[in-house]
Amino acid sequence: MRKLLLASCFGVAALFTAGYASANEELIKLSADANQWVMPTGNYANTRYSELKQINTDNVHKLAPAWTFSTGVLRGHEGAPLVIGDVMYVHSPFPNTVFALDLNNDGKILWKYEPKQDPNVIPVMCCDTVNRGLSYADGKIFLHQADTTLVALDAKSGAVVWSAKDGDASKGQTGTSAPMVFKDKVLVGVSGGEFGVRSWVSAYDLKTGKLVWRGYSMGPDSDTLIDPEKTTSLGKPVGKDSSTSTWQGDQWKIGGGATWGWYSYDPDLNLMYYGSGNPSTWNPKQRPGDNKWSMTIWARDVDTGAAKWVYQMTPHDEWDYDGINEMILADQQIGGQTHKTLTHFDRNGFGYTLDRTNGELLVAEKYDPAVNWASKVDMDKSSKTYGRPLVLSQYSTDQNGEDHNNKGICPAALGSKDEQPAAYSPDTGLFYVPTNHVCMDYEPFKVSYSAGQPYVGATLSMYPPPGESNMGNFIAWDGRTGKIVWSDKEQFSVWSGALATAGGVVFYGTLEGYLKAVDAKTGKELYKFKTPSGIIGNVMTYEHGGRQYVAVLSGVGGWAGIGLAAGLTKPTDGLGAVGGYAALSNYTSLGGQLTVFALPGN
Amino acid sequence: MRKLLLASCFGVAALFTAGYASANEELIKLSADANQWVMPTGNYANTRYSELKQINTDNVHKLAPAWTFSTGVLRGHEGAPLVIGDVMYVHSPFPNTVFALDLNNDGKILWKYEPKQDPNVIPVMCCDTVNRGLSYADGKIFLHQADTTLVALDAKSGAVVWSAKDGDASKGQTGTSAPMVFKDKVLVGVSGGEFGVRSWVSAYDLKTGKLVWRGYSMGPDSDTLIDPEKTTSLGKPVGKDSSTSTWQGDQWKIGGGATWGWYSYDPDLNLMYYGSGNPSTWNPKQRPGDNKWSMTIWARDVDTGAAKWVYQMTPHDEWDYDGINEMILADQQIGGQTHKTLTHFDRNGFGYTLDRTNGELLVAEKYDPAVNWASKVDMDKSSKTYGRPLVLSQYSTDQNGEDHNNKGICPAALGSKDEQPAAYSPDTGLFYVPTNHVCMDYEPFKVSYSAGQPYVGATLSMYPPPGESNMGNFIAWDGRTGKIVWSDKEQFSVWSGALATAGGVVFYGTLEGYLKAVDAKTGKELYKFKTPSGIIGNVMTYEHGGRQYVAVLSGVGGWAGIGLAAGLTKPTDGLGAVGGYAALSNYTSLGGQLTVFALPGN
Repeated sequence: MRKLLLASCFGVAALFTAGYASANEELIKLSADANQWVMPTGNYANTRYSELKQINTDNVHKLAPAWTFSTGVLRGHEGAPLVIGDVMYVHSPFPNTVFALDLNNDGKILWKYEPKQDPNVIPVMCCDTVNRGLSYADGKIFLHQADTTLVALDAKSGAVVWSAKDGDASKGQTGTSAPMVFKDKVLVGVSGGEFGVRSWVSAYDLKTGKLVWRGYSMGPDSDTLIDPEKTTSLGKPVGKDSSTSTWQGDQWKIGGGATWGWYSYDPDLNLMYYGSGNPSTWNPKQRPGDNKWSMTIWARDVDTGAAKWVYQMTPHDEWDYDGINEMILADQQIGGQTHKTLTHFDRNGFGYTLDRTNGELLVAEKYDPAVNWASKVDMDKSSKTYGRPLVLSQYSTDQNGEDHNNKGICPAALGSKDEQPAAYSPDTGLFYVPTNHVCMDYEPFKVSYSAGQPYVGATLSMYPPPGESNMGNFIAWDGRTGKIVWSDKEQFSVWSGALATAGGVVFYGTLEGYLKAVDAKTGKELYKFKTPSGIIGNVMTYEHGGRQYVAVLSGVGGWAGIGLAAGLTKPTDGLGAVGGYAALSNYTSLGGQLTVFALPGN
Repeated sequence: MRKLLLASCFGVAALFTAGYASANEELIKLSADANQWVMPTGNYANTRYSELKQINTDNVHKLAPAWTFSTGVLRGHEGAPLVIGDVMYVHSPFPNTVFALDLNNDGKILWKYEPKQDPNVIPVMCCDTVNRGLSYADGKIFLHQADTTLVALDAKSGAVVWSAKDGDASKGQTGTSAPMVFKDKVLVGVSGGEFGVRSWVSAYDLKTGKLVWRGYSMGPDSDTLIDPEKTTSLGKPVGKDSSTSTWQGDQWKIGGGATWGWYSYDPDLNLMYYGSGNPSTWNPKQRPGDNKWSMTIWARDVDTGAAKWVYQMTPHDEWDYDGINEMILADQQIGGQTHKTLTHFDRNGFGYTLDRTNGELLVAEKYDPAVNWASKVDMDKSSKTYGRPLVLSQYSTDQNGEDHNNKGICPAALGSKDEQPAAYSPDTGLFYVPTNHVCMDYEPFKVSYSAGQPYVGATLSMYPPPGESNMGNFIAWDGRTGKIVWSDKEQFSVWSGALATAGGVVFYGTLEGYLKAVDAKTGKELYKFKTPSGIIGNVMTYEHGGRQYVAVLSGVGGWAGIGLAAGLTKPTDGLGAVGGYAALSNYTSLGGQLTVFALPGN
């Protein structure tokens, strides 16, 4: 403990002045130090795994809150705080307040940043006024505001160092995602798939806030930063106009493909990975074609944005199976060979493992047995439909036409998993996945585009699979074989991000408000605590003064909790599905609190 | 433990159907059962003392949160939950939501009541949108809404049984106080001293909600329910027109004397006790005379409202030393004789002990050494000024005239103590008093009355006493001698109600958000925990399933926290004094959470 204590007290003071050769070097070192939680994903690989093990399977039942903090904001609290040295950085949903809290003093407020934002941004945020967190690099804290402003704050004082407006909220472009810092760039995406926003990823210079490159999800090759010859899909060059050729007319200009998920990065390959969202509108009849490159896993060169490879999971989406979920980078042995893999749990209900060097598809299996819209992903390399899901006609909302209510499609639009990130433990070789166990009725209808107005084009309602009552499962997944290893039932969707630890304990939160700790090997529940409000935040851990802490934001909301968050009580056009979660109001109320847990000190 | 467990499991189910002969009998029995917390004051005597002692001075350092709950409402959370059997009843500030929480299930919501109230009531609430809690009797939960509606809810279902409108918010009459049930009546007061409301106490029939009697703080004897011959003050009949004769012209009709404090009750004497507030306006020049019976301790017959005795603590108030603070009933030995006493810590900085049978003044001493506006209370029975404070001219805002800024008056308008209730332990014979250690500059000015508009008439600013930095103390007080036994400094006013227990531990909360446990004998701090937001709620305790719990509402606000609660950043006209508490924003943010503590289960 003594050594850790010293590291905590002295190592930290030097953090902001250490003079690393590059932000990259600094971040790699800090993210390798388990005492810190320096990026919203824990590390570049997005494993959300911590080497801390003071809290373990033997003692986690003794866990208890050590201190707490209210953000002063209600509605959905996604994301997680950062810890760098003696300071914790906490964010809130709109108005996106940022707090720097003193870990030496039970979270005393060192500084607070409150952006001035036009509240008219609220109605154009599709699924609650969420924000997924902050990033740190080079002595600065980065915030992506609801109004798409990316702001760099001095980590010591909270003063604005620079800011850059990335989009235009009056056109339905909003900011909900956590920025990520890769090398000397701050990467940020955009929300607005339900407003016909042709989406992009932007890279800003870390020091100046100057835009370096921007890559769109759809459009001409010059916009998508796709090279017809060099960019591959399933091992083959994509060819000229690979995106625009899969759209009718100019529909791609309002084509969606939002980019608000979590980004990962492989420093050795210098590639960043992320998913693009659903094509706009939700009415598939209005946009014939594959709608590339919506619903796609992207591998881009961080320096230039050039696409190395792409893989479209759900061509011509008919269900809003938004492909934004995170890509978790690990090395896994598959077929007797160790691959640099990327594992992704898509909204469409398939868990994919790819070789991240080249986008080779290795595994694609359902991670919820309820998934029924496709029989499987075609893994036959000789097949014309190789790599595509084989859609069942009865669940094809396109084939059944407009104004037809398609019943019993699983998963629902919010997917077998949404943004709530999974974790991966190298100790068990397993992924820990918070899932939705929800089906839907989906009725597409014709809709007209008007900038800044909802452009949804479907009505839907969501409910548990027939004959079942639980709307969620927390599962352990073997990404090598594509099999569920264990599954813990939850009454509601698990809309909280998971944390895996070297202590053999996996943590997650529930919509009722419980923080839960389970055995990584068996899924056995070892501890639970009812926090003030439903949890849609991500669990994180850090060590300070020789003591391991586990922290999570409570604050029910997000898509699953939009009924509570926005005071809705029945299914609404487009967003739908409030109904299935109405029972949440029997368990929890709105909130906005951080709870920091530790083992008793004495 | 087994016995307690049985009591908890079986006794409770029968609670609502026990068929007590009277509500009084039921409440006396329930309040004698330390497992319950059946009224907001703990018991009729307002001692806020619990016989529970599972948590004691030896083990309280091990305390930790057991479960938590967010009310979904921000701003100041005063008061405390009730516990009756397996159910906890929690209230919120405006909109005054009521929750019934299942103690067998970590606070699952059994029912919720959300009044529909005109939000225009908010601007006429002088000092945040607070509510001080609920009462229970006869299978009903009673809520006093901001709009002065008194509502009786079925304790099992939350259905409205009856409701009664007690006042008119358009005239500045609002509800903030907890109703109290004495015998077969629900007693409720009114807020509005800063709006020229001539205030009253109402008694409603428990079963029907019909008004039984109403006693005003000022006006003709028929309104005050004073009998010129039978009602006494300091042992003598008050005589005819004792109130109106002390006012100029009709000023008494807008005379204030609010009644929003805590009420106590002596079943043997059938007397209820409460204090009336400041006379309106705060500009003393506009209301010559003693302004009776503002600033008065009242003893009324519960059946008829008839005043048995009155004692005016601060005749002709010149400082807003609102007399609403609670009366704590105990039997104390003074001068070799055991008295049925009433102890009261007034805003004016004096701690009073009276014989509650007849209003005899036994002790009146300063409970904060900073108090300077009066040299003492004249205790010489032969003196013409017997029982009156001896005011120092330099601090007389009347003598110094309008538009004169009177500097350095201690205490400030919010008093050496405000509504935050003290506790009394029969084990130590001491009172535990959360205090403000604050002085002020006070400048009265001429103001005109207009119904429903603020009628304040003074500007002020508040700050710690010269040369000191702490704005609060938590003290132990000997009510027999009028001496401070020990005093714990706090940076800010202690605006949370205290709890004394048979475990030798006294609890209170701080504006920074700490729940603190101290040794009842010495004041030594034994435990503290940082809750999500600043605490202005009152600590309570109960036992369930053989385990003792301690619970408190967090949610910074109230007068001291109005700066944070209402987003104010500088002293404001009338309310003033935000400045001194501005540093609170370095410690805490708005919230609204219940934290329930217990010793670790294993």
